[in-house]
Parts: sequence; C-alpha cells; structure tokens
Amino acid sequence: MKINEFDVETWMTEHETHCQYNLTETCVSSLSLNDLQKYTDEDITSTIMNITMDYGPIVGSSRLKKAILSLYETGHEENITMAHGAINANELVIISLLEPGDHIVSLFPSYQQMYDFPRSLGCEVSLVVLDEEKNWMPSIEDFQKVMKSNTKMICLNSPNNPTGTCFSLDFMKELIDLAQQYDCYILCDEIYRGVNTVTKQLSPSFSDYYDKAIVTQSLSKVFSFAGLRLGWIKGPSDVIQTIDLRRDYHIISNGPLDDYLGCIVLENKDKIIERSLNICEKNKELLKEWLENEPLVSCVIPDEGTVCFLKYHVNMPSKEFCLKLQEETGIFFVPGSAFGVENHLRFGFTHDYEYVKEGLTTFSKWLNQFR
Amino acid sequence: MKINEFDVETWMTEHETHCQYNLTETCVSSLSLNDLQKYTDEDITSTIMNITMDYGPIVGSSRLKKAILSLYETGHEENITMAHGAINANELVIISLLEPGDHIVSLFPSYQQMYDFPRSLGCEVSLVVLDEEKNWMPSIEDFQKVMKSNTKMICLNSPNNPTGTCFSLDFMKELIDLAQQYDCYILCDEIYRGVNTVTKQLSPSFSDYYDKAIVTQSLSKVFSFAGLRLGWIKGPSDVIQTIDLRRDYHIISNGPLDDYLGCIVLENKDKIIERSLNICEKNKELLKEWLENEPLVSCVIPDEGTVCFLKYHVNMPSKEFCLKLQEETGIFFVPGSAFGVENHLRFGFTHDYEYVKEGLTTFSKWLNQFR
Repeated sequence: MKINEFDVETWMTEHETHCQYNLTETCVSSLSLNDLQKYTDEDITSTIMNITMDYGPIVGSSRLKKAILSLYETGHEENITMAHGAINANELVIISLLEPGDHIVSLFPSYQQMYDFPRSLGCEVSLVVLDEEKNWMPSIEDFQKVMKSNTKMICLNSPNNPTGTCFSLDFMKELIDLAQQYDCYILCDEIYRGVNTVTKQLSPSFSDYYDKAIVTQSLSKVFSFAGLRLGWIKGPSDVIQTIDLRRDYHIISNGPLDDYLGCIVLENKDKIIERSLNICEKNKELLKEWLENEPLVSCVIPDEGTVCFLKYHVNMPSKEFCLKLQEETGIFFVPGSAFGVENHLRFGFTHDYEYVKEGLTTFSKWLNQFR
Repeated sequence: MKINEFDVETWMTEHETHCQYNLTETCVSSLSLNDLQKYTDEDITSTIMNITMDYGPIVGSSRLKKAILSLYETGHEENITMAHGAINANELVIISLLEPGDHIVSLFPSYQQMYDFPRSLGCEVSLVVLDEEKNWMPSIEDFQKVMKSNTKMICLNSPNNPTGTCFSLDFMKELIDLAQQYDCYILCDEIYRGVNTVTKQLSPSFSDYYDKAIVTQSLSKVFSFAGLRLGWIKGPSDVIQTIDLRRDYHIISNGPLDDYLGCIVLENKDKIIERSLNICEKNKELLKEWLENEPLVSCVIPDEGTVCFLKYHVNMPSKEFCLKLQEETGIFFVPGSAFGVENHLRFGFTHDYEYVKEGLTTFSKWLNQFR
C-alpha cells in the first residue's frame, strides 16, 4: 500500500544520532530503570529477572489497565487496550475503523500519521489549517466547513505536534457537538497530555466527554519511558473489542516485562510528571528570555505539551537551514518542511536547563551571520 | 478495514490462561532473564538497569543485526530490519509491498495472517491445500496451477503452523524457479526454523537462495523469548529500505532494552537452541509412543518446527471436542477449526517431558468414553 514518507520520523532517524545539542526532542529527558527504582519500594531488578518471558497478558494486565485509568475521570478496564507505543495505538484505531472511501478531518500542521495513514488506506482527507496569526488555534467554523455526510472520524493530536495547540474544554465540547451531528468518531492522540505548565493539572481528555471518542497515549513523552514502547487506547468498549481482535494481526501483545514496568511508571506518575513539568517549565522560561533578545526568531509558546514551533526570520528553506546549522554548530532541529510548513523549526522543552541554555546561546551566535 | 477474526489467536487468548495441561503451546518452554544470565558472562542486570529508555536504535543496533545474520549464510546489515515480533514483521512486509488487486498464493491450513491480512487489503488470494494423505506436503504442480500473471507474492510459513510442513532445499529451489518465472516475491515466515530433530542443523532459509525472498523470524518460538516481542525481516536491501520508511507509521522502534536483550539471546543461540532441540525431541518420542497405544488419534510428525496437527477419530466437531476436553480434564488444545480443518488438534512439542506425559495419559483416559 503506497504511503508518503513520514518526514519528521525520517529526519529524526537520519540526523538525531550525531548532534551536540538536540533542541527538537519531544520526549522529556528519558529515564533509566535505575531512575525508576528511586520512585518505588518494589524491587524492580528481582522482579524483572524472574518474569517468564512468554507473550504475557495479551490485552494488557488488569493492574496496568487500572494504572492507566487513573489518568482519566471515567472508564473501566473494558475501555482500555494496549499497543506498541501511541504510533501503533493510532494505527490500530485507524485500520480497525476506517474503510476506503471514508472521509476524515485532520489538523495541519500536525503529526503526519493522522492524515497520511488514513490516506494510504484509501480514505478522503480534509485538513483544518492552523494559522500562526491566530496562535495556531482553529475555530469551530474551520471544522464546520470541511465536515461531510461521510465524515467517519476527526483525527486530532492535542496537544499538537509541532504547534502545541491544545483545545480548551469549551472548544472540545463544541467539537463534540459537531461530531455528534455527523455520528462521527473523534480520535485524539493525547501523547503530550500531562504537562500543562499553567494549570499544573491533568487537562481534560476527549474520552471523558464523548461516547464516540477514542484517545491514545503512551509512556514516551511526558513519562520519559519511550524505550518501553508501551501505548494504549481508551475508547468505547465495542471499539476496544474490535481492536483487540484486530491486534492479533499486528502485535499480539506487549510482553510481560513492558507490562510490569509500565505499571511501575504509571503507579508513580505523580512524581514522574512533577519532574517533567519542572523540566518543561524551565525550558519555557529559558525560551521566553531568549526570544526577547533574539529578533530573528519568534514563537507562540503553548501552555501544554513538550513542543512548540519556532519561526525564523531568515530567507532560507528550513531543510537547508537545519542542515547548515547542524553542520556548523551541532544543533539539531526538525525543519518545518517535515511538517509541510516553511521557515519553522520544532523546538522541544525536554532537556536540562544548562544544555538548552548553551544550545540557544550557540544558536544566537550562529544567527549573527544573518543580521 | 474489514478482516476475518484471527481464529487461532482469539482461541488462545480466551482459553489458554485457565488450563492444567497446555498441550498446544508453540513456544519452547519460555525462559526468564535469570535463565538467560546463566548463558552469558555479561552482567545483564547492571546493563539493563542503566540503559537510558529513549527510543533506542530505530532500525535495530548494528550488534543485533550482526547476531541475526549469524543465522543465515548470506546477507549484510542492509538486508535486516527489526519488527515487533514476527507478526509485525509479516504485517510490515505485506502492507509495504502489496496493493489492492495484487494476487498472492498461500498454504492452507497455515498461519491465517498469511492469507487473511492480504485479503483485508484487497488482494486476491489462492490457496494451495495441504493433504494429510500426502504428509501435508504440496507438490510443485499444486503451486503451478494457481499462479497468475499478477501473482505478486507467495506467502509461506515453513515450518508450517499447524502441520509442521517444511520444504526441502530441492523443493525450495523448484518453488524459486516458479516464482522467478512470475517475477514474484516469496515471503516465508520462518519463525519455527531452528529445531530440526533429524538433521540437528539449521535448515536452509529462502533468503539465502532467492534475490526476491523475504523471510521473517523472531525470538518467540525456538529461542523461548516471546516476551521480548523481537522480530526481524531479512530481504533485498531495497525492500528493507521501503519497510524502514513504512515502519515509522507502525512501531518506530523496538526500544533499547529489547534490542540489548535480543543480542544476548542470539549471541548465545547455540546453547538455547540445543535446549529447544532437546525438548522438542523428547516430546516427539513421547508422542510417537503414545500414538502407538492410542488408536483414536493419528499424526504426521514433522522433522522440524514446534507443532504438529493431531487427527482424532471421534465424531465430534473440534471446537466442541476441545471445550469438553478442557472442561473435564484441564487439557488445552487449539481446535482444527481455528485453522479451517475439522477433526484435528494442534499439538506443541514445547513443554517438559513429565508435564506432557501426564497430559497425554489424562487425554487417553478421557478418550475411553469414545471407544
């Protein structure tokens, strides 16, 4: 099945391993199992060395599902199933529910999987284009304009990668009203949920407000454990059943080791998210200060998520800009072109203060050649 | 996208957790990390506790690919890529290379993914039906009869689940000649390769004999580490490149923990496979002895693989037979109906001698009611 190259992931794979300053990382500074051990009294080492490495709980253990449910206001175990990261969670939802000829609505710029994977299956796609002048926030009219009688799913990423766009509860309710009129699913990839530096609270999840909402998440971003490749889906029980049957063709299970470690991460989520919030907050302060003194770059800094989308005021295509920057300074960004938007760079609030400070200072020095 | 229920996996998920004798298991008695530690001088615990849990090597580490290549006679790192188990490896190959309208050829009975996943993508499927009277071995004429001008791929599982059908090198070469005439890929899921109890040697892999062969494998069956969910694909470098780009939409990576542990398993493959061969061999001896004294069951016992397909001479549909058997004795089998063949049971050569002996003795006692 033909599919467009996944530009951001391809760029990451090709360029991220050899850089001095990775200022584009989406995962809050990743932890080790030794770090995890500090958050819990359970003897992780002894447990994992003794696990029989069979397929483990095929649809996820009850303990893990309970830990996941603590992130939401509603739902039971029958509303949760497991996947290999949020990427596979999104895949499973899309391939299970969509058919060739179905119409879907997605954001642009956004995570490319949300529109190009349905497209590869033969779905028709309409994009709601986010406008930086409006702080990357769409209006409900933007959605109304593109809905059709055969719109089967609205595919969102909120907080959004790369803009950080995050919907307020009021806007979510308007969107839900619209979806209801079309009897349409809302799929929301909520992988960046959990680090709202303004409210310091867990933001609302679509799955707590709409009976045809399906949300996905994983341990990769705000929980700092991408390496576990543990994602999940929360949705109506009939959708979860459909996906559970479907998953046998895709991954079978996550394995007992990742299931167990996922429990430990989520059972200690408060401490882990506190750390992540702290890191994101410091990065945002740093970025704000830096932007005040750097006229060649501007940015809408979002309340939530681990990323934002820098605009640079230099007349050079973003791919060329990033390659030159990385070659000359070791600073690594994903170019806006990987999201279909020129003159932008994705910035991540995910690294240590000193590291980012050094990186930004180096970036400004490099920008001197364009003043 | 509509797809048929994956009967064998659904049956396993529903029934395997509450049985006394699992006589249908396909994975050679699963090991723990403590067991793995006994095979190596590397300090596994210390290493895994210190790994930074980011995405890890996206397409698999060089060390892991080298370890995988030791299972084949030909190939370089560019011929290998990683997947989440062989199930995902097969998915990635099929979804990357096939288009709606392509024709594929598969075996029947076989692993359902091989024909029903292409079917769900809109491919046309022809099945080569295996005949128990011919020891479940197809002839080259069986394949010749179903090839078409648009045959894009021959999808095989060898050794085959559930029959254990395994192709000799001579037959493989005949099949390759046929595929070449149609410029057609051969995809072979070789997940059961490695435990030939007759030759005690690694059997030939399609990937060492045909430049359009793509083979998949994982650590689940003969390596006893299903829980790592580590699978791989070996194929032509252009196919591997296509899959590497495609994989960003499906799994991104396996994570650094599984990558590292996969290295340790494969670098100690000789000792692990020796154990597996020993277990399979003892199970086969036991089954042969038992069959000599059990007129209600017969079986073609294969040279390789971890499974065979028992035929029972009782007039009862296999699903009903299995449910009644499990309810009354705790013995768990996958019914032939899950593979589309009645009056059969899938048997696995994978458990400890005493456990299987007790199970088979109990099975014979239960069969007394039908004599």
